[in-house]
Amino acid sequence: MRTRLISFAPDLFQTAARRVMARCDELARVSATQGQIERVYLSAEHARVNRLAAEWMREVGMRTRQDAAGNQIGRLDDSAGSGTAHPPERPALMLGSHLDTVPDAGRYDGIVGVLMALEVVRLLREQPLPFALEVVAFSDEEGTRFGKALLGSSAVAGLWDDAWWSLTDADGITLRQAFLEFGLDPGRIGEASRRPDELVGYLEAHIEQGPELDARGESLAVVSSIASARRFQLVVEGEARHAGGTPYDMRRDALLGASEAALAVERICRAEHHIIGTVGQFEAYPGAVNIVPGEAHFSLDLRGEFDGSRDRVWDLISGELDEIMRRRRLRWSAREVHNAAAVMCAPLLRDVVREGILATLKGGADEPATIFSRAGHDAMAIGSITDVGMLFLRNPDGISHHPDELVSAGDVALGIRALAESVLHLAAEPR
Amino acid sequence: MRTRLISFAPDLFQTAARRVMARCDELARVSATQGQIERVYLSAEHARVNRLAAEWMREVGMRTRQDAAGNQIGRLDDSAGSGTAHPPERPALMLGSHLDTVPDAGRYDGIVGVLMALEVVRLLREQPLPFALEVVAFSDEEGTRFGKALLGSSAVAGLWDDAWWSLTDADGITLRQAFLEFGLDPGRIGEASRRPDELVGYLEAHIEQGPELDARGESLAVVSSIASARRFQLVVEGEARHAGGTPYDMRRDALLGASEAALAVERICRAEHHIIGTVGQFEAYPGAVNIVPGEAHFSLDLRGEFDGSRDRVWDLISGELDEIMRRRRLRWSAREVHNAAAVMCAPLLRDVVREGILATLKGGADEPATIFSRAGHDAMAIGSITDVGMLFLRNPDGISHHPDELVSAGDVALGIRALAESVLHLAAEPR
Repeated sequence: MRTRLISFAPDLFQTAARRVMARCDELARVSATQGQIERVYLSAEHARVNRLAAEWMREVGMRTRQDAAGNQIGRLDDSAGSGTAHPPERPALMLGSHLDTVPDAGRYDGIVGVLMALEVVRLLREQPLPFALEVVAFSDEEGTRFGKALLGSSAVAGLWDDAWWSLTDADGITLRQAFLEFGLDPGRIGEASRRPDELVGYLEAHIEQGPELDARGESLAVVSSIASARRFQLVVEGEARHAGGTPYDMRRDALLGASEAALAVERICRAEHHIIGTVGQFEAYPGAVNIVPGEAHFSLDLRGEFDGSRDRVWDLISGELDEIMRRRRLRWSAREVHNAAAVMCAPLLRDVVREGILATLKGGADEPATIFSRAGHDAMAIGSITDVGMLFLRNPDGISHHPDELVSAGDVALGIRALAESVLHLAAEPR
Repeated sequence: MRTRLISFAPDLFQTAARRVMARCDELARVSATQGQIERVYLSAEHARVNRLAAEWMREVGMRTRQDAAGNQIGRLDDSAGSGTAHPPERPALMLGSHLDTVPDAGRYDGIVGVLMALEVVRLLREQPLPFALEVVAFSDEEGTRFGKALLGSSAVAGLWDDAWWSLTDADGITLRQAFLEFGLDPGRIGEASRRPDELVGYLEAHIEQGPELDARGESLAVVSSIASARRFQLVVEGEARHAGGTPYDMRRDALLGASEAALAVERICRAEHHIIGTVGQFEAYPGAVNIVPGEAHFSLDLRGEFDGSRDRVWDLISGELDEIMRRRRLRWSAREVHNAAAVMCAPLLRDVVREGILATLKGGADEPATIFSRAGHDAMAIGSITDVGMLFLRNPDGISHHPDELVSAGDVALGIRALAESVLHLAAEPR
C-alpha cells in the first residue's frame, strides 16, 4: 500500500530542510566552548536554546512550556491551528529528540530531529488529526555533564531516581544545585512525568550515527530497535615494580593484562553477529616510565541488538578475562555502571515509518532499509511509557560526536516528508 | 688470592651495620609527605639530609662542603685522620651514592650506599692510604622533581647542560629558580665538576633493585656494568568514532594498536637474553566510554647489558609496530627521550670489589656473583670522568621504589666489610 494521504508541493520540503539546516547552524553558535560545540544540561546554553526552540514552537502555533526537568515542550492541540483549547485529556503523538551535546560535538545529533519535528508540525497544522501533536526538545540525552545519560527523557518517563540528585559535574556541583541554579525546583521533578494514557506514541528522527545507510546509498531507514547496552568499569591489579630490576618471570604487569583484555573484547565481539564492544578509557598506574604498572583501569561498552546475545558475549569475555588474569597472576574486577535493555520499536510505528519512507521513494524503488540503532536515544526512556518509532537519516561516513558530523539538506527534506507522511499514516489507522 | 689486609674485629661490622640501619630510619623521617618517604632535589628535605650527612661526615673526621649542585661531600685527606691538610692535588677515591628518593620510596635505595661509605671511612681513617677518601651524597639521582635523572652526579662529571635550567617541576618552578631558592648560584654550577686527575676512581654500594641475589641466596655481588637504556614516548594515531555506530571494519582504534604494541614489546624482549622492555605509561584519547579511541600514548623503557643488543631489539620492535599499525590502518611515531650507553665497570675496580666480597665469604665459598645493573646509578655519570666499580647488596624479593624495599642488617655488615676490603685492595695495587 503506497497511499499518499495529502498532496504536498515538493518544494515545501526543500524550504523546510533549508530552514532546518540554517537553524542547526544557529544552534551550533550557542556553545560553552569557543570554536567548538558544547551544550550541557542546565547550563546557560541550555536555557538559550530552550528559548530559541520555544520561539520556533510558537511560530508554528504551539503552546509552549518548559517542564520540571528543563525539557522544552510545544503542544498543538487544535488540528485547525486556531489556538482553541481542547480538553487536556486528548492524547498526543510526541515528536522530538534532544538539543544537548557531547563536548566538541557535531551540529546534527539530536538537534536535527527536534527541528524536523517542528517542520512536520508546520506542514500538518492545518490537517485534522485524531491526536494532539507535541514536540519535545529533551534537555539531556548525552549525559555529558553528570555522567548519566537520558536525564531529560527519564524524567518524562517517570524513571527519575532520587539517587541522581547527588551526582556531581566536573566542578563538584550536584545535580540538585544545578537544578536550583537553573531555576528549577527539584521537589517538583515528578511533574515532568507523563502517563501512558496521555500519549499516542513517540516518533523520533535522528541521524544514523553509523555508516550503514551511507554504504547502501540510501537516505532513510526504519529503525527496528535500539540496542541494548551494558557498560563496565574494569580494574586489573598486579604489582608495581622497578622496571629495570624486575625480570619478566617476576612481573605481574597489570597493563599487559589489560591490553590482552582489550584485544580479547575485539576478538570475541568480531566473531559475534550484531555485537560490538569498545574499550574507550584506559589508564595504567602509577604511570611512571620506569615502573611496571601495578594497576590498570579500563572501560567496556557492549551493545547488541538483543539482550540475550549481549549477555552471552559478556559471559564469554568474563571467561577469557579469568583465563588471561590467571595466566598472568593478576586479579580483575568489573563494576557495571550502565545496563539498558534493548527497546523494540512498536510494530505499528515501524510500519507507519516504513510507509512514510515509501512515500519519498521514486516509483519502483526497493523496500526501505530496516536497521537497529547501536546508539542510545531518548526513545529508549520514552519506550517505557508509550510505543516508540524511529526514522534514521543517512550520516555520511558514519561520523558522529565529532565536528565533521554531517547530514545533507536533501536527506533532511526527504526525512521531513517521510516523518509527515508517517504521522498521517498513523492518523489514518483505525483506533 | 684471598689476602686479608688488616684484621678487623668482626663485631665492628655488626656495630657499623646497626648504625647504618638506624640512620636509614632517621633519614626516612625526613620526608615531604606524611606517612611516606619523598625527598626531592633542592627541597627543604634535601637541605635537612645534607646537614645530617655533613654532621656524620665530620664525626668520622672529614672536612665537609656542599658543592655547587647541592651534593654533600666529605673529604678525608690525612690517612692518619689527624686533620693535617694535604696538598689539594692529592687524588681521591670517591665513595658514595644518593640521598634523594622517588615518591613513596623505600628507605635504602641510594641511602644505604652513602651511609656504608661513612662506615668504611670510620674503619679506615687510621690506615695510611695512597689516596684521599671522599664520600659524596649525590643530590639528585632519581630525577623525581624535574624529570631528568642524575642531575647531581652529572654536575660532578661536568656533564651539566644549560638547557636543563628551564626544566620545571610540577608547580612550574624552573630548575634555575629552585637553585636560587635553595641558596645555590646557577652561575657557579661549573665549580661542581671534577677533573679526572683529581680522582682515583669511584666505588658505589647499592641495593640490587632486583631479585637475582635473593634467588641465589647470596648477600653481595660484583657489578659488571650498568645497563644501557633508551626511553621513548610513542603515539599511535587512528580515528575517534562513535562507539555504538562504528562497525569493526570501519574502526581505526588507536588503543587496540597500542595494546598490541605493548604485548609485542613483552614478546620480543622475552625472547632476547638480558633485554627488558617496559610500557609504564599508557593513555587513550579522548578517553570517553562511548568513543573509539583516536589516539593512544605510551612510554617504552628498554634496558640491556650491551648497547648493541638493546638497539637490535628496538629495531625488532619498530618492525613489529610497522606491521601492527599497517594492518590496523594506524600511524605511529616515537620520540626518543633518553639514551644512555652502558657503562662498564673498570676491570681493576671489578677485581677489588670481587676481592672485597671474597674476604667476607667463609673458607671454600664460591666465586661471588657478577651481575649487571638494570637500574641506573650515579656511577653512570661519574664513569665519564673516572673508573667506576659497584657492589650490590641483596634486595629481598627485588622490591625497590616501594615502601617494602628491604636490605638486612647482616648483609649491610658484610657489605661494609667488603667495601672496606675493596678500598684496601685498591690501596695495595701498584700504581
